[in-house]
Amino acid sequence: MPKLYFEDFVTGNVTEYGSRPVTREEIIAFAAEFDPQPMHLDEEAGRASMLGGLAASGWHTCVLLMRIIYDGFLFEAASMGSPGVDEVRWLAPVRPGDVLTVRRTVMETRVSKSRPDVGFVNLLLEALNQTGRTVMTLTTPMMIARRGAKTP
Amino acid sequence: MPKLYFEDFVTGNVTEYGSRPVTREEIIAFAAEFDPQPMHLDEEAGRASMLGGLAASGWHTCVLLMRIIYDGFLFEAASMGSPGVDEVRWLAPVRPGDVLTVRRTVMETRVSKSRPDVGFVNLLLEALNQTGRTVMTLTTPMMIARRGAKTP
Repeated sequence: MPKLYFEDFVTGNVTEYGSRPVTREEIIAFAAEFDPQPMHLDEEAGRASMLGGLAASGWHTCVLLMRIIYDGFLFEAASMGSPGVDEVRWLAPVRPGDVLTVRRTVMETRVSKSRPDVGFVNLLLEALNQTGRTVMTLTTPMMIARRGAKTP
Repeated sequence: MPKLYFEDFVTGNVTEYGSRPVTREEIIAFAAEFDPQPMHLDEEAGRASMLGGLAASGWHTCVLLMRIIYDGFLFEAASMGSPGVDEVRWLAPVRPGDVLTVRRTVMETRVSKSRPDVGFVNLLLEALNQTGRTVMTLTTPMMIARRGAKTP
């Protein structure tokens, strides 16, 4: 049974989740499968690129963030999914050995007009590395069941 | 050496890439690693959800699209990376056995003001399944070197 419902997401609320270390092996394995641009596969190609060294695919950072928020709160939320993502910005490279955390800010909440048993929760999700530098920001509307409504 | 430079991306140009079949095994493996929400792992949980059956994580569709466009044109483009993604919309479930293609539309191109050797190419990327249904749309600005400029 879910513990977190729409009503538990309060505008302005800030919480942090993680941490998650990132290894060279997984950076290269992810890139080889989904984004085999040389700067995500090879140290020398990374140095020759704007990334200045081997760095994770931006998509890899996205899916690591997804896993961090799943383990952090989504696993116990009455989530109904999401229509998409509003904006992703890759701000700094994610390197082998980095340790990521995610800062979640509830930007806005509103009950669905067409489905009053569901609310939209607009989240700002910031991925930070171990030095506190923001490596990625992402905003997304999530659909969360209201407390007392039938849940999925 | 790259073959495709900024000048090769012409506003209004539409091209298609793929196709890429999606298996049940990879849907479940991706979800188990990055997005273990039950509807991405289990047929019954999928049926009980808004997805109406086992369906790929939306993030999985994103990274499959990335691989399709890499194999389609990025591998031979003078790409300098991307600052991010402007909007992702998940419009229909991706099921085991679906076959994805990507339709790329060049929406706008402009030379960087701060770096005249680089241009921004705004792309609309639509993932279609084997029935022609659009399962995801994504817009992203890509940075591509201009022809004759020093490339990465």
